Order: sequence, then C-alpha cells, then structure tokens
Amino acid sequence: MAKLIEEAAASAEVAAVYADIKATRKVDWINNFWKAIATHPPTLRRLWANVKEVMAPGTLDPLTKELVYIAVSVTNNCPYCIASHSASARAKGMTDEQWAELIAVVGLANETNRIANGYQIPVDETFLNP
Amino acid sequence: MAKLIEEAAASAEVAAVYADIKATRKVDWINNFWKAIATHPPTLRRLWANVKEVMAPGTLDPLTKELVYIAVSVTNNCPYCIASHSASARAKGMTDEQWAELIAVVGLANETNRIANGYQIPVDETFLNP
Amino acid sequence: MAKLIEEAAASAEVAAVYADIKATRKVDWINNFWKAIATHPPTLRRLWANVKEVMAPGTLDPLTKELVYIAVSVTNNCPYCIASHSASARAKGMTDEQWAELIAVVGLANETNRIANGYQIPVDETFLNP
Amino acid sequence: MAKLIEEAAASAEVAAVYADIKATRKVDWINNFWKAIATHPPTLRRLWANVKEVMAPGTLDPLTKELVYIAVSVTNNCPYCIASHSASARAKGMTDEQWAELIAVVGLANETNRIANGYQIPVDETFLNP
Amino acid sequence: MAKLIEEAAASAEVAAVYADIKATRKVDWINNFWKAIATHPPTLRRLWANVKEVMAPGTLDPLTKELVYIAVSVTNNCPYCIASHSASARAKGMTDEQWAELIAVVGLANETNRIANGYQIPVDETFLNP
Amino acid sequence: MAKLIEEAAASAEVAAVYADIKATRKVDWINNFWKAIATHPPTLRRLWANVKEVMAPGTLDPLTKELVYIAVSVTNNCPYCIASHSASARAKGMTDEQWAELIAVVGLANETNRIANGYQIPVDETFLNP
Repeated sequence: MAKLIEEAAASAEVAAVYADIKATRKVDWINNFWKAIATHPPTLRRLWANVKEVMAPGTLDPLTKELVYIAVSVTNNCPYCIASHSASARAKGMTDEQWAELIAVVGLANETNRIANGYQIPVDETFLNP
Repeated sequence: MAKLIEEAAASAEVAAVYADIKATRKVDWINNFWKAIATHPPTLRRLWANVKEVMAPGTLDPLTKELVYIAVSVTNNCPYCIASHSASARAKGMTDEQWAELIAVVGLANETNRIANGYQIPVDETFLNP
Repeated sequence: MAKLIEEAAASAEVAAVYADIKATRKVDWINNFWKAIATHPPTLRRLWANVKEVMAPGTLDPLTKELVYIAVSVTNNCPYCIASHSASARAKGMTDEQWAELIAVVGLANETNRIANGYQIPVDETFLNP
Repeated sequence: MAKLIEEAAASAEVAAVYADIKATRKVDWINNFWKAIATHPPTLRRLWANVKEVMAPGTLDPLTKELVYIAVSVTNNCPYCIASHSASARAKGMTDEQWAELIAVVGLANETNRIANGYQIPVDETFLNP
Repeated sequence: MAKLIEEAAASAEVAAVYADIKATRKVDWINNFWKAIATHPPTLRRLWANVKEVMAPGTLDPLTKELVYIAVSVTNNCPYCIASHSASARAKGMTDEQWAELIAVVGLANETNRIANGYQIPVDETFLNP
Repeated sequence: MAKLIEEAAASAEVAAVYADIKATRKVDWINNFWKAIATHPPTLRRLWANVKEVMAPGTLDPLTKELVYIAVSVTNNCPYCIASHSASARAKGMTDEQWAELIAVVGLANETNRIANGYQIPVDETFLNP
C-alpha cells in the first residue's frame, strides 16, 4: 500500500506542486494520488504538468475529458481512477443519468470490440480513406 | 477472417435489420461489422437493437458517445472499432484537433491508471462518500 | 516478425519436440507458433509440456477447453491464437453456430465485466461463502 | 460504491424485471448486479434481456457458457463477475476439479497469447482458409 | 476467496513441492499463492516447475526478471502479484528509487502504447528488417 | 492510418523537436511514432519531453528500461511499440537469448496474474507490511 506524503511533511519541491494543484483546481486539499507519487518528486512534477496541460479546456470541454477519463478507467479497472474522476466529473456538472449513460456506452463498446476482434472483421475501404 | 453477408444475399430477417440500420443512420450502405455478424441473425438483431438504443441521443449527445466509444476501442486495441467510430465521430462534427486531444486524454488516463494501481493508492474518503 | 525454424532445419532437441507434437495431435505438420518459439529450445520444450498437460482430456472435455482458449484469446485480441484455436475447435467438432454463440457470450461478458467494475458493485455475501 | 435498489423500494418497472429474473432463474432473491444497475431502469431492462437470451440453452449448454463467462472475467479481473458466475457454474454442476482445470486453461491461454503477440507470429495459411 | 492448504495439512505430494520452494528460495515459509493452487496438486507442481525454470538466473539477472514481472502485473492490475513480486525484488536489492523509476516507465509505456495504437502508426521498415 | 509529418514538411516548432530527438539519440532519422503525433505539435512536444526524462539513465539502466517497455507493449499488444523498443533494446546490447528470456517471463507473469486473480488469493501479511 502506498506511503503518502502529507502536506505538513512536504519538502519545498513537493509543497510547490501541491500549491499549484490547489490553485489550479481551486480546492483546499490534496488527494491521495498526488500524495503517493510525491514519494518520487520528479514523477509528481512531471505527471502534474501533464495532467494540467492535457485536462485544460481545449477543443474538447473539461467535462467531456473527464467522461473519457472515466471510460478508460472503467475499461482498465482502476478503482482509484474511477472514484476520483467520477468525483471530478460530478464537480463539473455530470448528473447521475449521464453517468449511467456513460457506463452503458463503455459496456457496449467493450462488447462490440470483442465481437469485431473475434470475427476478425476487415476494415471497410471507406473508413480507411476518409 | 469473417465471412460477410452482402445485401443481395440477405435473408428476409437480415434484410429487415439492414433496412433499419440504413434508415436510422440515413446511410445507403452497410459496413462490414453488421455483414459479419449477420452470419448469426440473432446476434445481428440483438446487437443492432443495443447499439440503436445506447447510442441514441440522451443526456449525453451523440458526438460525446462516439468519443467515449473511441476511447474504449483505443484502450482495447480494436482496429476495426477505432476506424469505424472515428468515421462516425467525424460525420458528427469531430475535428482533427478534437481527435488529437481525445487520444491525448486516452493516453494519459492509461498512464495514470497504472500509476494508481501500481502504487495501490487508497481511495480518499471524500470520493467514497460524495 | 518471428523467425521460424522449419522441420528440416531443426536440431535434435527441437526435432524431438516436433515429433511429439505430431504424434500427440495425430497431425503431419507443425504450425508457426512452435516454429517461432523453437528459436529458444527451452521455451519450446517447456510450453509444449504445459500445453500437452493442460489441454489433455480431464474433468473438462477437450472441446470445452478449446472454447475457453478462444474466449481468452478474443478478450486479449491475439489474432494468431483466435485463428489456431478456432481451427482446433472445429477439428474437435465445433459448428459455426456454436462459434457464433461462443463469441456472443464472450462479448456479453466483456460488457458486464465493465458494468460491474464501473459501478464498483459489492460481492453478495452468498457468493463469498458458498 | 454502487447504490442498490432493494426489492421493497423497486418501481413497477424495476419490479417487473426483478420478477422475471426470479422466475427465469428459479431463485427467490436478486443479486447486487441487478440492484445496482436498477438505478438506471433502461440499462436494467436492456442487460437482463441480453443475458436472458445469450445465456439460454442453445448449441452450447448452459454450464459451458458459464465456464466461458468465468474465463473472460478472470482475464479482465472482474472480482464480482468471477464470484457470481462461479456460483452460477457450481449451481449448474461445476465441480472443484473442473474449476481448477478451467483456471489452468485460462492461465495458459493468457501466457501463450503474449508469446504469440510478442513474437508477432504470422498466421498459418491453413488456419486462414479452413 | 481462495481456500489455502497450510503446510500442516499438506499431502505428501504437496509437501514435496513446498519443501522444494523453501529450499530453492532459502525461505522458511510458503506464501498464499502456492497454498491456494495446492488445492489442485497438478497445477501446483506444474506452475512451480515453470517459475523455478523461468525465474532462474540466465542471460537476464534475477532482479531484472522481477522488475519485468512487476511491470506486467501493474499493467494487468494483479494486486497479489504486485505485492509479492515487489517483495521479491526488494529482497534482491531493488531500492525505493528504482521502484519509482520502474513504475514511471510502466506508466509511460501504457500511454504511448495507446497513442501508437490509436493513430494506427505503420511500423518503420527499419524496425521490420533489423 | 496515421498521417505522417516528414522532416522536410515540418514547421519550425516540429523541426525543433525532431532536431532534439536526433541529437539526444544520436540518430539521423525520425521514426514514424514522432511523425504521426507531429500532426498535433503540443502532443509531440509533451510526449518527447516525457520520454526523454523517463528513459534517461537513472537508478535503472537504459537497457533495463527498454526491457520493461517491451514487457508492457507485449502485454498490451502494441505491434508498433514491440517493434520499436525491441530495436532500441538491441541497439543497447540486448541479445536474442535475452529477448527470448524476456518474453518467457512476460508470458509466465501473464499466466500467474490470472491464476492469482482467478483464485482471489489474499495478499500475505508479510507483503503488506514490508
């Protein structure tokens, strides 16, 4: 089980990342994911920089990005990621009904992925040369 | 490699599903996924009914559902599904920039999923009792 | 792409395994899986011994074991394994109808696996203490 | 963690599905999978219809279908599904010895899947044109 | 949950494998993996023989093999395997810093795997004909 | 299939990353992975920065990191990644014998991962509190 670096025990390097997480997300606490990887400061710094850049608003809005994140986490079975990104998505406005529809799509895609791979279906020409 | 049931060779049962696919999607051709599973008509009928229901507009819009479908298909590595749902997403308005952002989120989620599972990070109380 | 050790080029050690594969399976040729791992004779010997023991008739009959093998291979998307074990299953009597039913079960299980993991459903007491 | 809809709290729509599950399976209780997805009645109705159709006796017998279901669930690591379908399989006659043989096949298939994909072994002509 | 065969309850066949595990590894206890599969002695014997052969020093040193084992276990999300092989790796000299670097590589590889599969990048000629 | 940005067609931003890849790796060409993600320059810049940092020599040597990368890529079935990182590993000294041992460990780990998850083996106390 992961060792967690609490805020009070953070080095200056770790504290700076924690501060940026709180400022960027407008929250007043640090969740366990960051406390765990803070045991290796280069990983903490690198992953936070990646998450901050990739999850920022772009041509996809932040809620859509959270839904995609949940879809991947459910497919891979990462309980921590399902819980944390479902919380993020709810904070960005996801309703219970939307969550249920999301999981329905994820389930169906996992089914048809195996049907397509099982039958070894050739990709239609139209899809290859759009 | 999958045997494909062309439209001209379809039984009445299969032809009825093909007709509904074309009418529902407003297209004039059938892609290979349906032609392959048409070798087992109960599966054709059942899966089309599921796709028709799950992918219909709901509290999530159809483009968001396609993005989620692509996210799952990339995570599972289903080349047919990546190609066909990328085509569907483009037909519903997805831009190249959105596709690139989508894949960036999918890649990052696959990375952090393993970081979280690797460190066996305990789920924060806040996430468990939202 | 894998280098293949053809029968004519086999060392005595490899040839002995090839001979046992042909005798055990009552076939007169060696498929590419064995020719590829024959580049590392200890792996050839070890894996053949495992396959020979695990796939032998037991309390599960050989066809059922092939169906299970296909189910795993489809879930993991191993095209070689899907092709080779589908051939083995057909040789042991699997019909096209049975193959279609098998893939339907595999697809559905992949769907409900994600639904169960997505909802983080607690295991019923009854299932834990059968 | 999933919210569960107990039988006493079920709407008429949910109660009707619960009743059909109990009648079809000849059991007098509802397991948590259905109680969890009952939070979204369309998913409850749709998935039960799928399970009822796909898992019914066909050219594959019900026990074989359960073994296949377990094989997929173990490969994907879905603890709920492993527990519930192992219980179903035992109820249909699976012995401890059969369960152990099943897991042995599942383990071996997962190994050889990676060996085949790792070596990028070309599919034999014979398997492609059966 | 797995039934465990404790050392005191082991049959002669199981006890012989337990003794070899302890002698080979120079430890005085048996971990739960072996106790669980001891419920099916042929699987206990077979898997131990495989682990003993594959994990022995070869052209890759034993610590490197443990790191690879952890990488696979994290990718598949096998909590038991992550815990047991991390312990083995620490016993063979892995430091906390090395563990953190290992998980960083595993996470990054999972990300770029999906980027490569998502973009369906053609393999460079140079890599195909080394 | 991915669109590739050739060196001659690269914007200044892309060309700068290409130049750093060639300088860092002491090679005179760019492989397709970078050419494909160069269609989205922020992803090119971000992923190269990550790869450069994570794969640099650290407490794990570069060859060990490549072996771990291959292990993940084989487990996820990413043909591009298997090919490119096998080439990198060979350039760093990996022999054919080491490659074969690596794949043997990867295969075995995939097998025992499923055995452990299938039996739902409880983690030994010793492993939890090292």
